[in-house]
Amino acid sequence: MSRGKNLKDTIAKNGLAHVMAAHSPLSACLAEEAGFDGLWASGFELSALYGVPDMSLTTMTQHLDMVRAMADRSTLPIVADIDTGFGNALNVIHAIQQYERAGASAVVIEDKSFPKVTSLVADGRQELVRIEEFQGKVEAALATRADPDFLIIARTEALIAGLGEQEALTRAAAYEAAGADMILIHSKQKDPGEVESFVRAWSGKVPIVIVPTAYPEMNEERIRKLGKIAMVIYGNHAIRASVTAMKDVFARIRRDGGIQNVNSDIVSVEEIFRLQGMEMAKAEEKRFLR
Amino acid sequence: MSRGKNLKDTIAKNGLAHVMAAHSPLSACLAEEAGFDGLWASGFELSALYGVPDMSLTTMTQHLDMVRAMADRSTLPIVADIDTGFGNALNVIHAIQQYERAGASAVVIEDKSFPKVTSLVADGRQELVRIEEFQGKVEAALATRADPDFLIIARTEALIAGLGEQEALTRAAAYEAAGADMILIHSKQKDPGEVESFVRAWSGKVPIVIVPTAYPEMNEERIRKLGKIAMVIYGNHAIRASVTAMKDVFARIRRDGGIQNVNSDIVSVEEIFRLQGMEMAKAEEKRFLR
Amino acid sequence: MSRGKNLKDTIAKNGLAHVMAAHSPLSACLAEEAGFDGLWASGFELSALYGVPDMSLTTMTQHLDMVRAMADRSTLPIVADIDTGFGNALNVIHAIQQYERAGASAVVIEDKSFPKVTSLVADGRQELVRIEEFQGKVEAALATRADPDFLIIARTEALIAGLGEQEALTRAAAYEAAGADMILIHSKQKDPGEVESFVRAWSGKVPIVIVPTAYPEMNEERIRKLGKIAMVIYGNHAIRASVTAMKDVFARIRRDGGIQNVNSDIVSVEEIFRLQGMEMAKAEEKRFLR
Amino acid sequence: MSRGKNLKDTIAKNGLAHVMAAHSPLSACLAEEAGFDGLWASGFELSALYGVPDMSLTTMTQHLDMVRAMADRSTLPIVADIDTGFGNALNVIHAIQQYERAGASAVVIEDKSFPKVTSLVADGRQELVRIEEFQGKVEAALATRADPDFLIIARTEALIAGLGEQEALTRAAAYEAAGADMILIHSKQKDPGEVESFVRAWSGKVPIVIVPTAYPEMNEERIRKLGKIAMVIYGNHAIRASVTAMKDVFARIRRDGGIQNVNSDIVSVEEIFRLQGMEMAKAEEKRFLR
Repeated sequence: MSRGKNLKDTIAKNGLAHVMAAHSPLSACLAEEAGFDGLWASGFELSALYGVPDMSLTTMTQHLDMVRAMADRSTLPIVADIDTGFGNALNVIHAIQQYERAGASAVVIEDKSFPKVTSLVADGRQELVRIEEFQGKVEAALATRADPDFLIIARTEALIAGLGEQEALTRAAAYEAAGADMILIHSKQKDPGEVESFVRAWSGKVPIVIVPTAYPEMNEERIRKLGKIAMVIYGNHAIRASVTAMKDVFARIRRDGGIQNVNSDIVSVEEIFRLQGMEMAKAEEKRFLR
Repeated sequence: MSRGKNLKDTIAKNGLAHVMAAHSPLSACLAEEAGFDGLWASGFELSALYGVPDMSLTTMTQHLDMVRAMADRSTLPIVADIDTGFGNALNVIHAIQQYERAGASAVVIEDKSFPKVTSLVADGRQELVRIEEFQGKVEAALATRADPDFLIIARTEALIAGLGEQEALTRAAAYEAAGADMILIHSKQKDPGEVESFVRAWSGKVPIVIVPTAYPEMNEERIRKLGKIAMVIYGNHAIRASVTAMKDVFARIRRDGGIQNVNSDIVSVEEIFRLQGMEMAKAEEKRFLR
Repeated sequence: MSRGKNLKDTIAKNGLAHVMAAHSPLSACLAEEAGFDGLWASGFELSALYGVPDMSLTTMTQHLDMVRAMADRSTLPIVADIDTGFGNALNVIHAIQQYERAGASAVVIEDKSFPKVTSLVADGRQELVRIEEFQGKVEAALATRADPDFLIIARTEALIAGLGEQEALTRAAAYEAAGADMILIHSKQKDPGEVESFVRAWSGKVPIVIVPTAYPEMNEERIRKLGKIAMVIYGNHAIRASVTAMKDVFARIRRDGGIQNVNSDIVSVEEIFRLQGMEMAKAEEKRFLR
Repeated sequence: MSRGKNLKDTIAKNGLAHVMAAHSPLSACLAEEAGFDGLWASGFELSALYGVPDMSLTTMTQHLDMVRAMADRSTLPIVADIDTGFGNALNVIHAIQQYERAGASAVVIEDKSFPKVTSLVADGRQELVRIEEFQGKVEAALATRADPDFLIIARTEALIAGLGEQEALTRAAAYEAAGADMILIHSKQKDPGEVESFVRAWSGKVPIVIVPTAYPEMNEERIRKLGKIAMVIYGNHAIRASVTAMKDVFARIRRDGGIQNVNSDIVSVEEIFRLQGMEMAKAEEKRFLR
């Protein structure tokens, strides 16, 4: 069974897939242990890991290396955030080949122009490509995938760009017409109203994906009540959690002049060994080292 | 001024350099903001990030990419953990060229045989190379460095391997004789006694480096009282803090069916923007995008 | 059908597979067009491409990137030269996972100690690991492969190390007993006598692989007459051809003060376009760019 | 002395720098031995090596890895072909930081829109960005370089795009006004007339760079007679020579059923050892292996 099938099955069975952002195999393992249904190979988290703005500066190579390493260590399906597809429809073709081989189960392509600016920043430059151009990208992706269960999710940034619900609906319908398997609708409004209104107005057949970073009260209960949403992506909470903890622990070590106080507040070295698969490695040493 | 010089100056001025483990440019930036004197490009943290045991499985390429990316984003001197030097003295020569060009200020080479097993694991296979062989590696490193301020730190695992203080002292003296700039002494005893005894017995001229993971009560005050120690490395607290926070946040999101409760307990998306240098990027857009 | 199956089928059908060294997707495409049955992802050619001695200096990451890129552009089965397996049996386990996912159909593992020295150099350091140790590596590889058609080829360097035919036969038999799918026997004698004698004396069931660099007169006719050999690897002729041509063309351009004379002696830019798939790309532009 | 200075000095001393395309450290070494003044880290050759069209499909990471590896093995100054700068002015800023640290001495940025299509292909899509936009890129590059001797070379594709000499001159003048150190003028006319006319008409102060692939009779003598040209780039002859030789050798091996006939027509394995620095490695083994 392909990993893409796995993701579809989860949705078919539970109605909603919970997909957690990851920026490393380690965070992928933790998300799997926590019981999430899939991994969001987030461009934003990768950019943050490298300390650069999420503006098409990290490369497809860096992102693919991460996706591949996550696929090596976790059995969860991976939804790869490929931004604008790294250029035009030909870059999309190249990318789909690479991501499918790297072990992803789905990609999200967005209708911004390349190079993009991250969606949630205040006063960010937000330019969309023409509808026909983006349809060409979606069709290129569909024509390229080898596994029909590899999902092509079209993301419209019409609300992010301030173009209004009507434009968002028009674009979503056009992308569905081009063959997209799902529509991701993104919003930076501080409350769920904008997204909820879009979902209610959506009359397409394909399901919707949301990323409720800006409107966190949009929880599972509210999502299910609304309907039509098949996937919720928690887009940046892995890196935000990590930063929170490192800031705190680093400050305390400096203040305390040592690690004597933080030591018991963080997981043990043995817990890291466990996550690294040290027990398996020791068993393999016994079996094969002579 | 070379970065190596920078590290030497810190030691000359403060007597003790506090060096924090990092596994990404992001954790490097956080360590710099917290006021640490240098970065430990930890092989253990890198292995953990990739979800594999710290047993010479990650490659020099993966580690160099990380060192280079950290040097791009932080001005702190980087102490690169090159394990055994990736093989024999010729691998060391190759590695020193690569790490110096990648922007490191120092390397730590340990006297285990390749492939190594991480030091703190219970019942780990711990084999050391002959003293003469390791002296050859140290001499190869010294002959290769282009900048005389690029520090070659020799790490003996004699205590880790259970060979006793005398063997540790003999090896440390031999490595100093071969030209090592500092000696790193590692111990997995749960209290500082073993390391303190070694330090008191050490009659060499070069200073000592410690990694007090197993004996956290060895704080700055106690280190200064003991003397002879120029550098303390906090070897895995960045990744342990990150794991602790991700476990907690992931579990809460699953339990809560959403991000509504964790949102206020982790840093904001805007704080991530700040760490990514978003303000600078927006200023550059204004200045150069036409 | 897996690529590994493909290689087995060729051997079943033709009795002998001709496998050409490649150091890039480009050379892989050229070998496929020339009609070879498989690609040798040569560590020697990769080292040469990077301008470093073939002594375990290039990393598994660099080699995997090359294998993956070749698998993207050629449909030929790839026989990956993984040297000693990058360390001990645990490194072998890690490597097998990685190479199988990268698209290789087979690996060759040799019984030298890590770090290795290239086999054909005069007065090279040639040390073998104990037979039991290497059997552990072979067994680890077998236990790790996901596809039973992914071939594990054991290479003995007993003749290269000057240990004589009896040691070579003993080792080959021990590796077959450990489960190896084929035995690669290497020799640096300037005539085929040493290898022919080994093949005649070989009483095992698994077929033999040879690399006749040092004894080029060992051609297909002679190989078939001898029997028992299933694969011949042309180990370095792609890079040697490239170097020969670049030396010549570079010298002529310098001498001529320009490209006016070499231009008609090398393939046209249009031929490079063809190899890059430019026609397909233009068709995709027409179909998907709007 | 920085490598950039080195290139400037060559031009100051000889009036003309001969820069040879390279796609690997090996081809870089061969170009250095042949007596060229610099290396062209060609995007076209890299794309060809990977078997993909030269259409912004290979990534900055892949190109940087190659530049870095060439800088490791050759002392020649490297002129990096960074195409359009991988996006907008912010991508240029990121790229300049990376290429300078990777060891390049100069970059060439072209005024096409991203993603580009290679210049010499028949009926290729050739779109230029607005003059002001490209000036912003040039200014961004200048403001970013750390070493004032790191050259920013602006390449106009106005002739390639069929916009005529006047547009080419206008753009060249605008790029000089923005601070470009040199102007690269590219032409796909089969004779040198178009470029010669441009050079004669050029009244700017900065020198000109040409790439005479399409009009090979434009040799050193003719260039010097014309004047104003400081650098000639031989843009693809390394890869074309390699392909020519591999095609020939591969075909002969297939036809001959072995390597018996090609063996004496290509450089020996020992010559590859020499290029890999095997002698130095053996001396290092003697000195440091114990």
